[in-house]
Amino acid sequence: MLNVAIIGPGLVGGALIEQLAAHLQSPRFAGLPIAVVGLINSKKMAVSEAPFAASDLGDWKSRILGSAAPDADLAQFADRLAKLASPSVVVDCTSSDAVAELYPQWLAKGLHIATPNKKAFSNDLSLFRRIQELSGSPQGPSVYHEATVGAGLPVLSTLSDLVRTGDRIVKIEGIFSGTLSYLFNNFSAPGATQKFSECVAVAKASGYTEPDPRDDLNGMDVARKVAILGRVAGYGLGTDTLAIENIVPEALRGVASADEFMSRLPEFDDHFAQLNGEALATGSVLRYVGCVDGASAQGSVKLTRYPLDHPFASLKGSDNIIAFTTERFPNPLIVQGAGAGAAVTAFGIFSDLIKICERFGAGTK
Amino acid sequence: MLNVAIIGPGLVGGALIEQLAAHLQSPRFAGLPIAVVGLINSKKMAVSEAPFAASDLGDWKSRILGSAAPDADLAQFADRLAKLASPSVVVDCTSSDAVAELYPQWLAKGLHIATPNKKAFSNDLSLFRRIQELSGSPQGPSVYHEATVGAGLPVLSTLSDLVRTGDRIVKIEGIFSGTLSYLFNNFSAPGATQKFSECVAVAKASGYTEPDPRDDLNGMDVARKVAILGRVAGYGLGTDTLAIENIVPEALRGVASADEFMSRLPEFDDHFAQLNGEALATGSVLRYVGCVDGASAQGSVKLTRYPLDHPFASLKGSDNIIAFTTERFPNPLIVQGAGAGAAVTAFGIFSDLIKICERFGAGTK
Repeated sequence: MLNVAIIGPGLVGGALIEQLAAHLQSPRFAGLPIAVVGLINSKKMAVSEAPFAASDLGDWKSRILGSAAPDADLAQFADRLAKLASPSVVVDCTSSDAVAELYPQWLAKGLHIATPNKKAFSNDLSLFRRIQELSGSPQGPSVYHEATVGAGLPVLSTLSDLVRTGDRIVKIEGIFSGTLSYLFNNFSAPGATQKFSECVAVAKASGYTEPDPRDDLNGMDVARKVAILGRVAGYGLGTDTLAIENIVPEALRGVASADEFMSRLPEFDDHFAQLNGEALATGSVLRYVGCVDGASAQGSVKLTRYPLDHPFASLKGSDNIIAFTTERFPNPLIVQGAGAGAAVTAFGIFSDLIKICERFGAGTK
Repeated sequence: MLNVAIIGPGLVGGALIEQLAAHLQSPRFAGLPIAVVGLINSKKMAVSEAPFAASDLGDWKSRILGSAAPDADLAQFADRLAKLASPSVVVDCTSSDAVAELYPQWLAKGLHIATPNKKAFSNDLSLFRRIQELSGSPQGPSVYHEATVGAGLPVLSTLSDLVRTGDRIVKIEGIFSGTLSYLFNNFSAPGATQKFSECVAVAKASGYTEPDPRDDLNGMDVARKVAILGRVAGYGLGTDTLAIENIVPEALRGVASADEFMSRLPEFDDHFAQLNGEALATGSVLRYVGCVDGASAQGSVKLTRYPLDHPFASLKGSDNIIAFTTERFPNPLIVQGAGAGAAVTAFGIFSDLIKICERFGAGTK
């Protein structure tokens, strides 16, 4: 039996609970011994010796984390999980730096970790290396974080397989931000007529951007994903060592509010129109990509041109795409699809849980 | 320690031995306890208590399966592997029906199986079901066959993750034959001028087709892959229940030799030119695809039109591509890249070996 405990049941954690609850009741789930035994949000927590019933998970807000539940205490939560008889996995569905800092303590207690939280894998290299050391043995504990890049798309598992079987990475290149995918798929296409500021305004109104769109356009989210890919490939990358092209116009970086940024962005429509026109004139489109170069072991984040028959040029909606060019795949191995959203992110975590369950779920600690 | 034994070290098996030998000597391999202990071809065999050294694997023809080695006997080979102290995996690199029939016996002895051989997963449904039953427990033994569809591309692992986490399959659609990918990528493209028979002749001369190209054009290889995908998705598909469009012209199906087929194929160039012209006139191209429909749980293999901005239309060379349309991925999750060739097929098997090693390699039997 593998015990699962979820931290931060918000959008993604809630979707994961739904998927797990559905499957506790499905015959397809038979044979995969997973039990949900812990839940904690910012206020309340619950850890149970007996697995939560699917019906309780379906209404966890009142039936598991209701007013009678003990107050949240992350240290106690981890201690109680570590004392259970079967192996336990902590699923960190927060995006918190502070929670990520706790991973080494949890691993030292023998707890497995599965998470879409990018912080532990893209902040200080020293934290990442401690986590690697503590999870490097075949006997466990293990750390899985497929959903930190491309949500549920098989990105990190594929990269890990390539590297561990001895392929040589030539280049990893991709569109890793659903927001920037959407923006440039719409702005930079033959016949497209929307101005750049209009595209950003539509994306913001549709909820595709961060509250301040500069948090997308500055490239930091993409840089985190590039750092993660580079680290899984075996290179000591950090967001501080990457060449990052921040496409927020310099004059607007210091502007105080998102509203003021949005109202002044049209001043720079001519700038983006010129870049776009130059690309289209050569039969290309603009895409905002992250790149890891195997030869130099360096990474970058930048606005780049791709010819119209390139797979990046025909991307639709807010899809992600990633191309692995290697010794064995001189024509790249490509994965594409939805790289953001609660259901597909939860799918990525659930896939990690299956792997942990298959490796460790049959045994005792 | 996971013991690996390889049956049929030809092109693919040879590439796998190379990859395993390279990694026994690489620091990246540390921590993954894999040992190669058995080799058998049609004449000789060897099973060793002590792992073969990387240097012996580098020259296995003379140093492991040389004239002093015992004569090949597959039953003895399996028996000896089953008696080793650590778990063992048999890697079937043949394409033999007879070898595939032995899988249930091996599983009953506790041997794991990893293979690119499609037969056990696309022949009689009864054989497949026996294999499923014998490998269905978390304690093992296990069967992995990623390389039976799309070689090393993460196709079956992705499908399995989708299904096991409870996603609903709407449609699985793809170009699964490197040969037919190459033929139609070249024949059916805006501005392409080669006649169909010329494309086939070039593909044959380049070694991309079977000795008799009708063995590609009849759709049976694609049908096997569709059956495998359908079965992994949970449907009882067989090549006998699929709607298969055989594109060998009817008049040439009974022709005795491949040479006569090739010499008469130009008689049908007008037929293919017409199909192609009709597609191009509507802004589409022709692609030979396999399809599994989730709602009906049925499969098909057919020549189909795709608009120019569809990912299948911009495929290059002999790449494979597969699109999973599901409840969670209404815009499909797509995987593409080389789906044939010794190195990438061996990569697919090696990735399976890592999974078996992670699940069972740390324990004893």
